[in-house]
Amino acid sequence: MNKVNLAHKFAQFSEPWSPKIVGELNGQQVKIVRFQGPFVWHHHEREDELFFVVRGRFRMEFRERAEWVEEGEFIIVPRGVEHRPVADDEVQVMLFEPATTLNTGNVRNERTRETLDRI
Amino acid sequence: MNKVNLAHKFAQFSEPWSPKIVGELNGQQVKIVRFQGPFVWHHHEREDELFFVVRGRFRMEFRERAEWVEEGEFIIVPRGVEHRPVADDEVQVMLFEPATTLNTGNVRNERTRETLDRI
Repeated sequence: MNKVNLAHKFAQFSEPWSPKIVGELNGQQVKIVRFQGPFVWHHHEREDELFFVVRGRFRMEFRERAEWVEEGEFIIVPRGVEHRPVADDEVQVMLFEPATTLNTGNVRNERTRETLDRI
Repeated sequence: MNKVNLAHKFAQFSEPWSPKIVGELNGQQVKIVRFQGPFVWHHHEREDELFFVVRGRFRMEFRERAEWVEEGEFIIVPRGVEHRPVADDEVQVMLFEPATTLNTGNVRNERTRETLDRI
């Protein structure tokens, strides 16, 4: 029941595309992650995902269109929807998603993180 | 799959203690709410709650202690734990919690909001 300061948590790591767990509730996890550059196209079979921009901005690409998500904004990507986050400049993002969510969804490659650190 | 801008959503209402639904995923809801003054002591039997401060600060009171939660910080209150948010000055808060969560938990009084607007 201690509060979590996002700036302090972000100061603890610099690697992009490596989500860290900072909270857990109701079977869901709160994660923070740095995006830089393009991620991998993927979808999640059973999980909806929320992306909240803490600092910076990024573009969420869908197959048919893209949406810029700015500081203080969030976007929810429903299960089954192919997406690819792209960050031209580094961005700090908070995620809210089920504890079962794998970062690369249906894809496994060098970007996949099977186990995440709690910080 | 449209993004949500929190500042734009907060601009749509001014009443304190009246949560609005701004997103839904995995059976959870994202709500925004303005706190001003003391709320009611309560707990939730089955729901953990996350409080993220978008603007301002408030004090989460527990029976044994209190925690100040500042802008860019969040606190998770586990199910069963009695708590009372108190805002000396108005604060803007984003909540993540199950869709079943009643704002006043085990208490019903004039602060209870049985149905929430989606904005």
